[in-house]
This record gives sequence, structure tokens and C-alpha cells, in this order.
Amino acid sequence: MDESAIYKKQGMGNRLGFGQKAALVIVDFVNGFNDPEVFGGGNIPDAIAATKTLLDAARRNDVPVAFTRIIYQDDGSNAGVFVEKAPKLKTLTIDNPLSQVVPDLEPKEGEFIVDKTDASSFHGTGLNAWLTYHHIDTLIVTGATTSGCVRATVVDACAHNYRPIVPRDCVGDRAIGPHDASLFDMNQKYGDVIASNEVIAELERLNSKAS
Amino acid sequence: MDESAIYKKQGMGNRLGFGQKAALVIVDFVNGFNDPEVFGGGNIPDAIAATKTLLDAARRNDVPVAFTRIIYQDDGSNAGVFVEKAPKLKTLTIDNPLSQVVPDLEPKEGEFIVDKTDASSFHGTGLNAWLTYHHIDTLIVTGATTSGCVRATVVDACAHNYRPIVPRDCVGDRAIGPHDASLFDMNQKYGDVIASNEVIAELERLNSKAS
Amino acid sequence: MDESAIYKKQGMGNRLGFGQKAALVIVDFVNGFNDPEVFGGGNIPDAIAATKTLLDAARRNDVPVAFTRIIYQDDGSNAGVFVEKAPKLKTLTIDNPLSQVVPDLEPKEGEFIVDKTDASSFHGTGLNAWLTYHHIDTLIVTGATTSGCVRATVVDACAHNYRPIVPRDCVGDRAIGPHDASLFDMNQKYGDVIASNEVIAELERLNSKAS
Amino acid sequence: MDESAIYKKQGMGNRLGFGQKAALVIVDFVNGFNDPEVFGGGNIPDAIAATKTLLDAARRNDVPVAFTRIIYQDDGSNAGVFVEKAPKLKTLTIDNPLSQVVPDLEPKEGEFIVDKTDASSFHGTGLNAWLTYHHIDTLIVTGATTSGCVRATVVDACAHNYRPIVPRDCVGDRAIGPHDASLFDMNQKYGDVIASNEVIAELERLNSKAS
Repeated sequence: MDESAIYKKQGMGNRLGFGQKAALVIVDFVNGFNDPEVFGGGNIPDAIAATKTLLDAARRNDVPVAFTRIIYQDDGSNAGVFVEKAPKLKTLTIDNPLSQVVPDLEPKEGEFIVDKTDASSFHGTGLNAWLTYHHIDTLIVTGATTSGCVRATVVDACAHNYRPIVPRDCVGDRAIGPHDASLFDMNQKYGDVIASNEVIAELERLNSKAS
Repeated sequence: MDESAIYKKQGMGNRLGFGQKAALVIVDFVNGFNDPEVFGGGNIPDAIAATKTLLDAARRNDVPVAFTRIIYQDDGSNAGVFVEKAPKLKTLTIDNPLSQVVPDLEPKEGEFIVDKTDASSFHGTGLNAWLTYHHIDTLIVTGATTSGCVRATVVDACAHNYRPIVPRDCVGDRAIGPHDASLFDMNQKYGDVIASNEVIAELERLNSKAS
Repeated sequence: MDESAIYKKQGMGNRLGFGQKAALVIVDFVNGFNDPEVFGGGNIPDAIAATKTLLDAARRNDVPVAFTRIIYQDDGSNAGVFVEKAPKLKTLTIDNPLSQVVPDLEPKEGEFIVDKTDASSFHGTGLNAWLTYHHIDTLIVTGATTSGCVRATVVDACAHNYRPIVPRDCVGDRAIGPHDASLFDMNQKYGDVIASNEVIAELERLNSKAS
Repeated sequence: MDESAIYKKQGMGNRLGFGQKAALVIVDFVNGFNDPEVFGGGNIPDAIAATKTLLDAARRNDVPVAFTRIIYQDDGSNAGVFVEKAPKLKTLTIDNPLSQVVPDLEPKEGEFIVDKTDASSFHGTGLNAWLTYHHIDTLIVTGATTSGCVRATVVDACAHNYRPIVPRDCVGDRAIGPHDASLFDMNQKYGDVIASNEVIAELERLNSKAS
């Protein structure tokens, strides 16, 4: 029996579908994660390009948008175990160009910038309270890396009872093996991994229902 | 360049090592995750056997021990998105034999039973406060599944600034592909994946230093 | 200048009002907090009586209901600093009659029982995820004690971006000074302190709008 | 029976004492909370003066120090219910002089600046992870206001199993009634309210034991 069959037999991998109101979180698409010499590589550039199209659709359909960045204090006073494991993270301070959202996805006034120090966009941040305030029940997660901050955010979104939606062409990783493995795991256990054009169609459908 | 080389070049995968005081958390080694007809299979039985040896060593060396179980209310009133994704989880109620820790690892008086509803052992539980109360800085994580609740617990342990230690022979999964992929990811980004006999040697060393 | 004038001058004490969907949480109205020989006294019995009327209205209007209880493990393995401060808390184990919701407010099938170990109903529990799953934006908080678990729950509800509503006759405390001081503080900074009949009128209005 | 007698009879108000390692958190002693025309007044200036002496002692004795500030994004994108209750909070943006720590307590390199949006210094911040990383078990809480962010921080510190210590002359509030009421409540239920010179003596004792 192959792996998918095991999960199917155990009743996993159900489709969640969209709820009533979605938000988009773009995880760590900053210059440092778009540079193969720092934390980037693999299929990340393609994922940024696809996210640009999705971001435009989100803005057109009044979907609240948040961007995350890893930011440590200049003196490293809040660096911890994650930085011990990957010491270059400590260079991602507030004024470092590597910490800024990539130019193609530049945040607009009124979009929420979530500064974080860990993999999950929920850990030690105001993301969950912001989602509650906006009556969100569905969280579209794009960004990098698939096997790192995207996955950690999806796992936490599920635990917080948001419906996690992962547009598979809008997430990227420095290496394809971990990327593929995390897409499989997320789709089996935590959220729906679907194509970004399907996500855009849902956002348009929800918006037309709302108006 | 193969995948490990990419991570090495980017400065990831450093060894954390043990801190000053360790605890052991045994994640979801309950009957339902030891039964291939429910949520089990793969290398889980072997991981339970190896965990038994590690648990004995932990007890001998005064290492605080916690066990987690997935438990939903009988009427399903606290089931959410995770249960929509994997509906059989809802059967794991407090009196269901499938929810009980496997007989080989039976908890003892004074060991902490963490009932949870999500993948991470930290989410919506008292685990973090218990670790703080016991002055823990290093968390040994065993259990099932490697790509599910073990990994989610390790990611959160790292974010909470505990040093996560994963004895590779003491974690198991229903399918080996996801198991191997999560061992790789955890070792690169969140914790140290080492052999259980190395873990036992460290516990003995810490205990002899303490006395 | 009296105290209210200071707060008014600094722009505090605004009325929040109800949002779109409310839930009711009944905090620690268990036998031990209704017994002056244990943790009760003061105006708690009156607050239980008023809560009964509110609970009936909530059920008639399809408002999701949660009950909290303080529960420690039988062996005290998860007791911590709060128990050091007030050691009798440790007696509140799962089978102790003092830990059970008072008979007048007996929970019904499908209502969520939140077991907790600390003052706030959010800390280490599934309350926030349950509220998210039910699309709640407004949290009515009743129970005991006003200056303890009620207030801690209201402060956290505000931080999580729920609109906290405190029906002033449905919260009680063992001593009236702390009760009054916390009503004042909550109304100035975290929620709306109003009469329970006003709360009931709002629930009926929201329900008629929904249908 | 007066109020203290009720608490004593119910076994509350025990002294916690110091643990093995303490940190100091200075809550919201920023210009806006030292200005009676904004959020200040009452005994806050005296509390800042007493905190300066305590801060000097903490630095002399290698006690880790954190400062909190309320900071909202310039466009208000992360303002929520707390800001609806007290709209002037929204002016506390990163570059507003009112948001900066008062000159008498200026943070030094290596001290942790915690930016927050809510009353508790733990909510949506890295404070807990920072305390874990520094092996802290005792949290000295000073700042403003006693009935607001100080108290919320103390309640959360207790829930996270740190021993909260409140030097009573180092916390201040815009109005004395709420200040006194919160000192009473904190001392009965969540922490030890003692004089700052007693705190300093304990820090010196702990430091001499460590070296």
C-alpha cells in the first residue's frame, strides 16, 4: 500500500473548503529568503511571482492582507534557540535590506506587517487577534519556506481553528524534497493544498456573495 | 548540490546540545496510534519499544516526564478544523481505550498527563507552564507521529526556547516517507536528532552533575 | 478631580457595544466557589441566580455556551505558582464535588466544559479556538470571582479582540471591595459593564436579525 | 469580618518568595504614561524614581532587564478592541516621543525591548520565550499602571509559573483607588507585593550565591 492509501484508509486528507471570510498571509517573502546566498533558492522566485497575482486578486476582493518578516533586535537580545540552530537568522534586523518584503509584493497602507522571531507566524505575534478582529475563518498561506515558516503557520492556523488554504504554486523552498514532503503532510492533516487559480476563484465568489 | 549541502551552506543544522535540565515528553503513544487500523502502523511499534528503555532511564535519573493524549469531549463540543480534516480523531474521548497510553509506557503517579486537541503538545495545554515550573531548558520529544504531533511539538518547543532533542529511534510514523522527511527538517531547523542511547548517556551525565 | 473624571479626560471608558455574534462563558460557578467555607461568599449566590436567567436567554437565542472549572490532576502534578499562593486550589480535582458546576446552572449536551488551572479562561485552554470556530466576536463573561478569574478572562478576551461584555449582576466575589474595584477597572479599560437585562435584550435583537 | 480576614480564612495570600533566578520587567514607563495630560498622573513619577534605584541594583547584580512599550502600527492596522475602549492608545506609534521609555530609565544595549499592543506584557510578545532562555523563575514587575498593564502582566506571569514580585513603590497609577485595590488583589492571589529595598536585598543575596 502506498502512502496516500494509508492516509485515506485512516480517514485523513478530507477537503475543508473555504468558510465565510478569508485573509491572506504572505510568510517571509523578504529579500533574504529570495537570495540563494542567504536563505533562498529552489522554487522561491516562482512562488513569489505566483503570489503577486494572488495578492492582486486579494486586494481587488477586499481580502485583508498580512505580511510576516523575521526580525531580531539589533543587539540580539531576543535571539534564542532558533538562532542557535541557524545563526544567520540573527542578521535579520529591522534595518537590514534582507529583512524587507520583496519589491514585487510591497505592502500597502493598512496591510498588517507581522514581525516575528520564530517559524510560526502566530508565535509571539498579534496575528491571531488581528484575524479575530476581522472576522476571518479561512487563512490563505503563501510564502517561504514551505517546510519551515509556511508549514508552522499552517499547523498553528489549524490549531486556532482557521481553515488553512495553501496555494501550492505560491509557496517555495530552498530544496524541493522538503517542499514536496510538506505539501503532502499539510494536505493530509492541516489544510487544503490547491492551485492558486482555484483560490482566486473562491475569493471572487466570496466577494460577490458579500456584496 | 544535494539538499544537505544547501542547508550547510546557509548555516543551518547546527548542533544545540543539552542545557542544564531536561524533561521527557511522550507524544500520543496511545493505543489508537499503535493500531494500524486506527492511526498507527509503520515503525510505531519499534519506537514504543525504544521509548520504554528511554523512559526507564529518565525515571532512574529524576527527569520529569509528561505524556500527551488527544482527547475530545464526548459530545464533540470542542472538535474543530483538525477533526474536519481527520474525522476519526473525534472518537478519541476520555473513556475510549484507544485514547489511553499504551500499557508498556504506563504513566506513574506524579507524571503529567497532557490532554490536547491539536498536533502540538503546547497548544491549549499546561505543558509550557509545567516546564517553567520544573526549571527545564531541554525537551526530549518522543512519540507519534513524527510528521504530525512530534514535529509540531518540536517546532513549538524551539519557539518557546527549549532545546528540542529527538531520539530518532523513539519517534514513529504510519508511513516512512513523511517520517524521514520530518527527521531531516527537524534536525536542520528546530532540534537535535540523535540516537536514544546518546540521549540516555546525556541524562546520566546531567544527573551525576546535579548530585 | 475624582477618578472617573481622570479616565474620561484620558479618553478611556468608551462603550464597545455588541458585534455580530456573541457567546456566553460562565466562569468557575462551581460548588467550591459557592461555598463561603471554601472559596465563596459575598454576592456570589445572587450572581448565580441572575446568571440562571441569562443562561436561559442564551439557550433560547442559540448563543454558544461555555463553562469553566479549575481542575488539577489528582496527584498535583500540574499545580504551580497559583497553587502556592492559594494552596486549597489543589483540592479541586476532577472528581471533587467542589469542582462541579453548581446544580442551578447544569451544563447541557453540546456546551463546552473548559478545564483550566489558572485565573484566565484562555490560559492553556481551547477557549479561543472554540470561539474562532463559532465565529464569535463578542464574549459575555459571568461567574466568580469578579476580581479574579472573571477579570483575568475579560482582560484576555480584550487582548484577543473579542468584545467583552460583563453583566454586572451576574458576576460575584467573596468580598465587595475587590468586586467593585474590578467592575470599575473593567468598564474603563477592557469591556462594557452593563445590566443583565440589557444583555438579554441584545441577544434577542441579534437572534432576530440572524433569522 | 474584614476583607483580609476572608482571604486568610480561605488560605490565600501566601508568600511565594524568590526562586533561583530573577528578571526585571519595567512595564510601560514611557513618556505618555508619565504625562498627566496623556495616560499619566497619580503616583507614577514617584514610582519611576523608585524604579531607577531598583534598575541600578538589577544591573549591578546581572539581573536580565526587559522594558515594555505599547506600540501600534502607524496606519493603525493592528489596533483592535483595546483601542476602541481607549482610542488615544492608537497614537502610540513607533516614532512618537510619547512611546519612548522615560529618559531616567533609558534601556542599555542587550536589554530587551518588548513592543506590545495589549495590557499584558506576555500577550503576543516574546517575553515568555526570553524568560525561558534566561532560566528565569522569578519575575519582578514594575511600571504603570498598577491596575492595568502591571496587573495583567502579573496575572500572566503567575499563570506561566513565574514567581511574580511587585515592589509596591515601583508601580504607579493615574488614580490611587484602583492602584490600592490592585495591590491588594495581586498580593492575595498572584504574587508578592513587597518594598523595593527588600527586593534589592534579595537580588544581592541571589547574586552572591551565584558567584
